[in-house]
Formats: sequence, structure tokens, C-alpha cells
Amino acid sequence: MKLVSILSLVFLLFAHAEQEQVHAGQEHPNLILTVEGVTNMRASLGKVPLFDQSFETAREQVDAEIEAGIDVPIPKDLAGGYTHERHKANFFTMQKAGVLFQITGEEKYAVYIRDMLLEYAEIFPKLGKHPATRSYAPGKFFWQCLNDANWLVYTSQGYDCIYDWLDEETKTRLNTELFRPYADFISIENPRFFNRIHNHSAWGNVAVGMIGLVMDDEELIDRALYAFDIDDSVKLKSDNDGGTIELKGYKEGGFLAQIDHSFSPDGYYTEGPYYQRYAIYPFLVFAQALANKKPGLEILNYRDRLLIKAIYALINQTNAQGEFFPINDAQKGMSLASRELVYAVSMAYHCGGNDPQLLSIIKDQGRVPLDNSGLAAAKAIAEGKAKPYEYKSLELTDGAMGDEGAIGIIRADGLTLVMKYAKHGMGHGHFDRLGFLLYDELGEVIQDYGSARWVNIEHKDGGGYLKENHSWAKETVAHNTLVINKDSQFDHNVKAADKFAGTPYFFLPGDTIQIMSAKELNAYDSIVMQRTMAVVSIEELENPIIIDLFSVQAPENTRYDLPLYYVGGLMSTNQEIETNNSLTPMGTNDGYQHLWQEGQTALEGDVLRFTWFNHGRFFTMNADIREGDELLLTRIGANDPNFNLRRDPGLIHRRKGGNTTFASLYEMHGTYDYASEIPINSFTSVTDLKVLHESADYVAIQFQLKSGELYQFAFSLNDKQENSQHSLTTTMGPLKWKGVYHFKKHINNGKK
Amino acid sequence: MKLVSILSLVFLLFAHAEQEQVHAGQEHPNLILTVEGVTNMRASLGKVPLFDQSFETAREQVDAEIEAGIDVPIPKDLAGGYTHERHKANFFTMQKAGVLFQITGEEKYAVYIRDMLLEYAEIFPKLGKHPATRSYAPGKFFWQCLNDANWLVYTSQGYDCIYDWLDEETKTRLNTELFRPYADFISIENPRFFNRIHNHSAWGNVAVGMIGLVMDDEELIDRALYAFDIDDSVKLKSDNDGGTIELKGYKEGGFLAQIDHSFSPDGYYTEGPYYQRYAIYPFLVFAQALANKKPGLEILNYRDRLLIKAIYALINQTNAQGEFFPINDAQKGMSLASRELVYAVSMAYHCGGNDPQLLSIIKDQGRVPLDNSGLAAAKAIAEGKAKPYEYKSLELTDGAMGDEGAIGIIRADGLTLVMKYAKHGMGHGHFDRLGFLLYDELGEVIQDYGSARWVNIEHKDGGGYLKENHSWAKETVAHNTLVINKDSQFDHNVKAADKFAGTPYFFLPGDTIQIMSAKELNAYDSIVMQRTMAVVSIEELENPIIIDLFSVQAPENTRYDLPLYYVGGLMSTNQEIETNNSLTPMGTNDGYQHLWQEGQTALEGDVLRFTWFNHGRFFTMNADIREGDELLLTRIGANDPNFNLRRDPGLIHRRKGGNTTFASLYEMHGTYDYASEIPINSFTSVTDLKVLHESADYVAIQFQLKSGELYQFAFSLNDKQENSQHSLTTTMGPLKWKGVYHFKKHINNGKK
Repeated sequence: MKLVSILSLVFLLFAHAEQEQVHAGQEHPNLILTVEGVTNMRASLGKVPLFDQSFETAREQVDAEIEAGIDVPIPKDLAGGYTHERHKANFFTMQKAGVLFQITGEEKYAVYIRDMLLEYAEIFPKLGKHPATRSYAPGKFFWQCLNDANWLVYTSQGYDCIYDWLDEETKTRLNTELFRPYADFISIENPRFFNRIHNHSAWGNVAVGMIGLVMDDEELIDRALYAFDIDDSVKLKSDNDGGTIELKGYKEGGFLAQIDHSFSPDGYYTEGPYYQRYAIYPFLVFAQALANKKPGLEILNYRDRLLIKAIYALINQTNAQGEFFPINDAQKGMSLASRELVYAVSMAYHCGGNDPQLLSIIKDQGRVPLDNSGLAAAKAIAEGKAKPYEYKSLELTDGAMGDEGAIGIIRADGLTLVMKYAKHGMGHGHFDRLGFLLYDELGEVIQDYGSARWVNIEHKDGGGYLKENHSWAKETVAHNTLVINKDSQFDHNVKAADKFAGTPYFFLPGDTIQIMSAKELNAYDSIVMQRTMAVVSIEELENPIIIDLFSVQAPENTRYDLPLYYVGGLMSTNQEIETNNSLTPMGTNDGYQHLWQEGQTALEGDVLRFTWFNHGRFFTMNADIREGDELLLTRIGANDPNFNLRRDPGLIHRRKGGNTTFASLYEMHGTYDYASEIPINSFTSVTDLKVLHESADYVAIQFQLKSGELYQFAFSLNDKQENSQHSLTTTMGPLKWKGVYHFKKHINNGKK
Repeated sequence: MKLVSILSLVFLLFAHAEQEQVHAGQEHPNLILTVEGVTNMRASLGKVPLFDQSFETAREQVDAEIEAGIDVPIPKDLAGGYTHERHKANFFTMQKAGVLFQITGEEKYAVYIRDMLLEYAEIFPKLGKHPATRSYAPGKFFWQCLNDANWLVYTSQGYDCIYDWLDEETKTRLNTELFRPYADFISIENPRFFNRIHNHSAWGNVAVGMIGLVMDDEELIDRALYAFDIDDSVKLKSDNDGGTIELKGYKEGGFLAQIDHSFSPDGYYTEGPYYQRYAIYPFLVFAQALANKKPGLEILNYRDRLLIKAIYALINQTNAQGEFFPINDAQKGMSLASRELVYAVSMAYHCGGNDPQLLSIIKDQGRVPLDNSGLAAAKAIAEGKAKPYEYKSLELTDGAMGDEGAIGIIRADGLTLVMKYAKHGMGHGHFDRLGFLLYDELGEVIQDYGSARWVNIEHKDGGGYLKENHSWAKETVAHNTLVINKDSQFDHNVKAADKFAGTPYFFLPGDTIQIMSAKELNAYDSIVMQRTMAVVSIEELENPIIIDLFSVQAPENTRYDLPLYYVGGLMSTNQEIETNNSLTPMGTNDGYQHLWQEGQTALEGDVLRFTWFNHGRFFTMNADIREGDELLLTRIGANDPNFNLRRDPGLIHRRKGGNTTFASLYEMHGTYDYASEIPINSFTSVTDLKVLHESADYVAIQFQLKSGELYQFAFSLNDKQENSQHSLTTTMGPLKWKGVYHFKKHINNGKK
């Protein structure tokens, strides 16, 4: 018998033995961990570096908590305060302790969870609602049910891990005195929290479902999956964020309905990636538990594997630092490094087809979840299977059916351009239709403000949304999009904005030219706006250049303000700026009250040239000027009594008139570093920019580079048929082309 | 015969052969490279990774330049402009091409240098002074002689490398038509540039000396070492930076006098580390050349190995990122990564005793100079000899004799505290006596503005000093030190400031307590100021806490403004800030004209608590309040027509009165990151701060922590005898101690 055969036999025998053990083994854990998975993890310890590190980190954290002793304080504080943070730390620790108990078999972890749960069981019956009354749905241990749902989602996992170890009496007590009534509180007693399509409700559904799975409580599981019928007697119609509350009945709400309504077919979540990151965890964790415990549901295949797609959608909405695009309410810096994504990406790898590109992201995360997925990913990394993740240009549709607007993302070299023409995003939406943001591989170039909030930081109003989030961050003027007559889009009315999505028009990923174009027909009465952005690679330029054409059909005497929140320091402009020796707020409402006007000028010449510097690079906007146009240099920070806003700079290109086009080019060029002090290519290569044609149906521009070379770009705004023939008369002669766009280098006859 | 013996014999034979070759070989190169060194380098190629990388980088750069072709344009532009940057690139390339010629033997490098030099020889006789007339000493190829001296220092090295390769005719032409007249231009024709003690003159001296060494022109060498006697007929009395020009005669000026006067015995350079970094290169390069060619001078042993000490002084004036403290005129971000320090640190390693701690710095630099030093350092690194550099608390004396003030640097854990009580620093000095700056290991905590300048960036006034450098950056209010009656120190008169140094009083490096205290007796008439800063480690705190006691003896009704340029965002304060809805500049002069007053309050209670956030950490100032004190929140940026200033925040603690003490504590605490959103320890641990005693002779404070523990710190301001006994009556009872300071934990009887 050859050695290979012997080894095969040993393997088979061993595998068989393992299988036997599974079938003969205990029932729990069976949510996220499984008996088989635990056996694998035990066998792998010490052999898979990334898994071992994650295991050791968890052990250090939990051991430190055990050392510090159990504390289950009477609830009192808002987010950031002691009791809030303590209860939060408790649920994270219980979840980890459960895993450690399963992997190590050390009873101290089980004892810790049991003793802590008994303390919760002790206080729970005595608690009314949380004393803080800020939430539309106050919780028990926390100021809002949402956090209570978080507690239950994590704690259920820890409970599952010690369930078979507990004596019957303790189990019965916890089930009947803590968990079942707690699940009822979150659901039956708080229908406006539970019976809704919203990320809060998703957490609520999953909380009830997870504990239902642990206790084999089919009533709770059914309630989690489908919600329940209620009498709509509660009068509250909106939540703390101004989002509308629409109550759903049985099978209109619940987990499956959340999947149906929360994600578009591309996996985009209408509140944007910051909230998707937050919401994805309960979706995935419950899906994993259902996959383990109710495989017949085939939850991972639901809606064409939508939950796995949602993870990819998240990854695709990050910059080179792995940070999510801060669309809508979003704290900047939230990233693929978050605990939710650590869980999600490994799960996508393990349950979504072992895509080796995901492994490079997991490597960067530097840790894996302590479960089957984490072990599989860590093993694959140790085996050298990781491949770089290829970020591609793509459009993520919004709306449950994928027909309510989209987010456009263009990637070209190190550059990432994002335009928002999606749904409003409910209570966390911003009035930013057709706004854009731009990154290079080092960070922000043209920024979105994000939310005005310091999440969980007690100093800043308890860590919740600041009032400047409404008065500044959501307003149109806080974004890189057009403000009409100093009013925010939809008159900053969330309900009105929720009714209409943006209108995707054209999206072209590609190599030398990539284009996205979208329309907004509803944000302002009787006004049609269309933004067309093209990213083109030109041989003589270091980086692709961005063409930005904002076409508007509007009545005469409309006042346009087009802000640009460039990131960095102003180097120079070709205009004579008059700076102000006295600063007053630029307005009283719609966000203008938060802007100081540092300087202004009546624009002169054909082109506004504006160069700034950031993270070792130069950036120039070249913008077409019309007679009467003004440039205003702004600084955020007026009417900010608690210093909640960043003092970031911006510019506003102001124009008065009827139908018009704002035509701009953004160029990234050159380098400079403080240790060499050698500037390279610090001036723009663009020498001229002209609008050749503008109408309701077309826009055409021409720009010239230092070399003398001329480029023309033309675009059909209403006919995107591939075979349509177009012809225009322009100031530079006739222009003919086939298809939606035309881009061409024109020989210049020696003129500069 | 054993193998080992055979190998030894082979080695000996080979070494002997090498030695022979040296003695029999050609004379040049003999400045920075030597014939022996070149042989070593050739033999080592391919074996020493860091050296190989540096070699390949140089080859790529030079090959790209050769490919691009030679361009020697007629001089026209200021710094940042094309002709300036071209001539600069040319000298860097010639220097590198020379080295490459020696190492590779490839003639194309020699040809490139020769052909370029011939082009310079062609234009040189036709050039008058540079057309730009901004400099007190305009150059030939550049707008100032300084840059011409740079050119000659680098070019001499390239010339040395091809000297023996050139035919006699070419050599004679270059010597007589380009180099000798150019050296005369820089020296004889520009005595105010050359015969002075100043970094400009050091470059001038070295330029003349280096080319003198190449050409064996003893007259030039003598002139470089000792300057020359001149008739003081030129009337110009100050340079572009406002520095006084004092002409020196033979042996009063020149290279040796520069060493005598430029550096303190500790190797500190009075203009500060940014300029020391710039100035050190010519000192070291000429010293290396003299060591090779005139070993009898023993230049490296001059003044107790002062040049090597100067390199250590530079290293010791950096933060955890290797960036120099931006004392005086300094562009922030200049660091150990600069080409000058790449040269210097390897030289310090090779010529200064093979200190293995320097190797870790060289590793971080990631490149070595292509010479004997670089090879030695790279070899040692490859052999694993590098050790971490231990940054220690130390005082660097200023003044040629070391008796004109000092810079105090305290390091404790990741924290770096710097106080300036040195000389003014001549034309590049700031009016910042007793100012301080603070770093943690991630960067700035309390900042010094640095200079108002974008070095070499043409957008920003040609890359030179901006007018805001005078009107803002140099002024006292731009620094973390006391402003008296809204006037800058010394009435912002450089000459007056140059006359007096700060007065070091006490410096104690150590473990649990470190102290620096210094006086300033001359900055304001009839006012005695003394700042005492102590860094103390306290068990219950995560980080050392900083005690800051600013004692002033001054007439009644003096107005004090004590600014603090905290870096980051304001989290909260315990005061009710009134913010302003209209901003006007805070004054018309002394820097106040550049400050907006964003908010203010009349301080209430005993302690001002002010917490800010930056790079994931929280920081709190706790300051003792006196009745009538005010807090002003400031923002830089008023009267800044070209957007030259950063919009950084600051606070001003304002007081009116006579003798007083500003007592503050700076605490670094906690963490927060945007991906976990978990704040830890975001509030200060200090609950109380009291001044127990203040007089002309003593200051004593007491502070309390959350735990209830009380700490007392007392300091004798005028008697620093180790054995002196001190006793004070304080509001908290009698205080007795021996020696200059007292620091003790006091048991608190249960009171919080």
C-alpha cells in the first residue's frame, strides 16, 4: 500500500469520525457557530495565523473584562454615557465569551455569560422604559429600542453557545423572565419600531428571530420573519430623524420584507453605505443562523443571492482607504475595518463562492470573525490565495425593483468619481441630487461634508445627530450640486423628496472614456437639471481629466449657486479676489446661515482657473465663465455656537439667467513634498475651455491643452440610441456624430 | 593547508592588490568619492540591498535626464519658475552622474557632465546679474547667489568625478572661463554674501572651497576657509529676511569661522533645525572633502567633533514622524527624509563612531548617499546591526559659547514637549521666547505655526517668504507664549531681539518627573517672565500630564494674552461660549489683524476645562481662572487676500492685572476611531486645579484627579541650589521642601 493511499484512508476515517461526532453531538450551538464548525476551529488552532491572532485578541479582551468583573448598571445614560457604553460592552463581550467557551472548552467563559445574564434577568422585570425620552421608541437597557435590539442580536449568540451547558432551571428562568418578555417588548410593545421597513426594524426583527432560534420559539421566529398584524392606534408618524413611519402588517413587515424592500437588485441600500454597513450585520447574522438552522428557507439564495450582492455593493462604495462614500447621514472614516464588515466580507467569501479578491480585503482588515467563515478565509489567505480586489466602474441602482435612481461610480487609475442620483434615502437622506465627490488614491479631492455628528461622543450632544445636521449637512448648499434661488431641493421636505428618485440617463464604463449622466426633474418646480460627467484619459496628461457639464432648463432670472467643496489649500486663481475684512453669514436659512463669505469677485475672461493643493498633489478646476458670473469663496462655520462644524473651504460659482450650462474641467496634476521641496507640474495643462453648443437636447464643449491640442466633447441629452445620428452647428463649425456622445482630438493649426 | 588559511591568503593578496591600485591610481575623485571608496563600491554592487536600491534610483533619475537631453536656459525665473528649477535639476543630476560614472565606468555619464558644463561655460561670460532684482545678492544662474552657491557645491562633485577623464584643453577652458570666475563672482564680487556669519555665507564659502579643491586652487581654498579682507564700501545693512549684515574680514569669516559661530557646543544652530538642515549639507560635504584631501586640518575633530554633534542635534529636534520642530522660519514637514539628512546621518554613522542607533534612522530614510558613508551604513544595516534610536530629554544650548539660551526638549512615553528660550535666530527668528509645542507619537497636539511660505511653489509669490510671514508667523501672538499689552516681544525689532538670549534656569530630565524652567527678562520692558513646565507620570493616568506655570512680574493693569494653538476640533468646554455672528479682525497690528474672534466668554468658576480631539485622541487643558479672566476663541485668516494662511483655531486666555501666574495642565487621554465608533476615556481626569502660592520667588499648585487623589507641585523661581530649604504658607497649609522643586501625592481625606 502506498503512502498516499494510507493517508487517504486515514483522512477518510478521520472525516467519518468527525461526521459521526456531529450527528451524535449536542444540539447547540447552531446559530452562527455549529458543532461541526467548532470541531474544525479547535483542530485548526495554532495553524492559521490570521485566525489565531483574532482568537488571541478576543481572548485578551474577554479575559480583561472577566478580570474587571461583571457590571450590569441600572440604565440611565444616553449614548456615550457610562451605562450605555457598559451595556454595549457587555453584549460584545458575551458574544465573544460564547465563542471562546466553545473553542477552548474553558468553563469560566460560560460562567461569565450565565452570571451576567442572571443579573440582567434580575433587573429586567423592574425596569420601565429608559428614563431618557429622546427616542420615538425608548428601550429598556438603552435610550432607544434600536440599541436593545443590538443587545439581543449579540447576546443571543453568546446564549446559544452556553445553552446546552446551562442547567434546566437557569435556562427556564432566563427564557421566561428575560428573553421572551424582552423579545415581546421590542416587537409587540413597540410596533412602530418593529413593523416598519427601516434599518431600525431590521435590527428588531433579527433580535427577535435570533433569540427565537436559540429557544426554538417558533412564534418568535415567525414574528421575526413576517412581523405581525396590529391595530394602528399609535399616533406617532415620524421617527427622530424625520423619517416617515408607515406601519406594516403580517407579511408586509418582518425580515423577508426588509430584504425585499431595503435593497435594490444590485444590493444598494437606499440610506447609503454608512447605514448599509450598520444594517448589514443583522441581515447577515440572521441569514447565517437561518441557513444553519432552517436550510429549507434557502435564505442565502433569496432574491438571486441578494445578501451576498449587498456585501459587494458595500465594498464597491469605498475609496482607496476602504472608507465608505459619506453619502447621506454618514460619519466619515467608517470603513471596511468596521466589525460589521469584518463579519460580512469573510461571510461573503465563505458563503458566496470563495472569491479570492475578497481575501485581499480580509488581509487588510487584519482580523476574521471567529466562525466557519473566518476560519475558511484565514486558511485561504495562509495558502496564498488572495488576489487584489479590482474596483470597477459601475452603477448601483436604487429602489426595491432597481428602477428608482442610482449611484454612479467611475474608477480610472487611482481616481474615484461618485455621483448621486438615487432615492432620497428616507430620514437620513440629504438634499443632494446630482451631487458628486472625487477621490484620488490618497484621499478626498472634492468632498461631501458627511453628517454633522460625532457618533457616541458624549461631549457632542450625547453622540447623536447635532442640530447642524439638519440646518447644514442635509442642505443642498452643503453639497457639490446646483442650488436654485438659494433654496434646497424639494424645499427640504423629506416626504416630497422620498416620492421621487433621480433619473439615470446614461452610464458608460470603459477605458479611455467613461461617462455618467443623470437627470433630476423634481427637485425644483419647473426646472430640468441634467449632469453629465466624463472621465477621459489623454496621453499628454498624468491623470485622467474630468469633464463636468451641468445643464439646466429654467426660467429667466433664476439664480444659480454651484458649490465646490475642494479639499486643501488654495494655491492661486486667475481672478482678482476681493477678500472681506468683516464676515457675516451668507444667509438665514437653507444652510447659507452656516457659511462665511471670505471673498468674492465678478468673474472676468473666458475661464475661471482655480488651483488647490492637498496631500502632495495639485488640482485645478477650469470653468467656463458667462458675463455676470461671480465667484464666492466660502468657509463653513457661521452660526455654530458649539463648534460642531469643520471650518472647511468651498467656492460657489454664481450665475443669474435662464437655460444654461455650467461647464467645468477638474484636473489632477503634479506633486510636491515638504522634505524635497521640489514642485513638479504645479500648473494646469488646460489653456482654454469653451461651450460650443447648449440647448435642451445637446451640450458640446471644446478644451485646449498647453501642447496646443484641442479636444471636443459633445453629448446628446435626450436621445441615447446607439445608432442615432446627431449634427450640430457650433461656433467652431458643424459637428456630426453617431450615438450618445462624441469625443475627439482635433488637430490644431498651430494656434495656441 | 586548510581552507580557512587559503581564504585568508587570498584575501590578503587581494587587499594588497587593491592598496597598490589606490596608490598607483588616478588622483581624482578625491573630494567626496575617493579612488579607494570607488573600488569598494564597485566590489559591493549587488550585495548590499539599501546601497543597490539607492544606486538604481540614481541611475533611473540620471538616465531619464540624459534621455530628455541637456537644457541650459538663459536665467530668467524666480524659484519655482522654469529656468530656476531647470538649473537646480541640472546640478543635482551632474552630481549623481559623476558618481555613476565612477561606479559604472560608463562614459555616457562623463560625456553628459562635460557637455552640460560646456554649455554653462558658453553662457556664463555673457551673463550679467540675474534679471530678478529681489535679492540683496543676485546671482548668475539664479535670482540669488545662495542658489548659485548650491549649484557650485553640487557641480564641483560631479566635476571632480570626471576631472581626470577630461582632456586638458576642456579642463583649462572650464577652469578659467567658468569655475574660477564663478567662484570670484560668489566671493570677491559679493562680499555681503560671502564675508558674513550666516547660512548663506556658509554655502558661499563651501562653494568656493569645493571648486578650489577640485582645481587645486589654493587661493580659493584659503578664501573658503578664512574669507578675505575687504573695504566696507557697500552700504547694504540687512538681507532680504531683515537679518543684519555685519561684514567680516580675513579669518573673521570663512568656513572655520562659520563653524565657530554658527553652532553651539551642543551642535544647535541658532536659526533652528529647518535652516540647520539646509546649512548642514555644505558644512558636511566640505568637511568630508577636507578630511579626504587635507587630513592635516583634522576638520572632523574641530571643536570637539562639533559637526558630528550638529547631526545628532538635528535628529534630536524631530517628532515621532522624523519632522523637525518648526521653530523660527520653517516649513512644516521638512524631515529626516530630506536629501541633506540622508547625506548627514550616514556620514555621522561612518565618521562618527558607527553608532548603531543611527542605522534605524537610515533604514527609515530608505536610501543612502552613494559614497563611502552610505556603503558603510547600508552594509551595517544588511548585517542586522541597527538599533532603535533612543530619543532623550535634553537641553540644546544656543550661542557659539553655549551661554546664550537654549531649546529644552522633554520626551516622556510618546510625548514630546519643546520650549524655546534660545537666541532670536537672526533674520529667520520668531518673537516666540518661552513658547512651547507639544506632540504625541501621532503628530501635533499644540502647534507652532511655522513659517508663512510655500517653499519653491511658484503660485505662492514665487515660493519665497510671504508677507504674512512677517505680519503673522513671526509675531508673538502666533505662538504659544504670553503677549503683553497686545505687543510682540521686543517690539518686533530683530536687532533688539538678537541682542539678548533667553535665560535657562533649570532642566531636569528623568523618569517620573521632568522639568524645564526658563526666564525672559528682555522681551518686554520692566517685565520678568518665567515659564516652568513639568511632565509628570501618575499611575492612574494613561499618559504623563503636563504642568505649565507661567509666572510674570509686571506693573498693575498689564494686559495679558496667552494663546494656545491646539490642533484639532473643540469637543467641549465647561464655559458658556458666546459665538459671534459677525467677524472682524482682532486688531490692526502685531499679528492680531490676522485673527478672527469666533467666540468669547467671561470665565466663570475655578477652572477652565477645554477638551479637543485630534487623530483619534482626546486632549484637555485645565486652567486656573482669576476673576475678570476671559476666554477668546480665535481663527487665523483675517486680512489674508491671497489665502496664504491656514484657518487654524486657537484660544486666548486673557487677563488684566499685575504680577500673576497662568497655571494650566495639559492632559492627553482616551481614544476614538471612526470605524469602531467606541469612545474610551473621553473626559479629563482632572477635577480641580488651584494655585496655592505665587510670588516673585515661588509658585505652588495643587490638582485633584477623579479618584480623589491630590497632587502638589511647588517650585523655587530664584534659588536652584540642591540643598536649599524652602517653606511656604499656602491656603492649604504650610509647605516645606528641599531643592528647587517639590512634587508629592497628598492623601485626600475622602473629599472629592
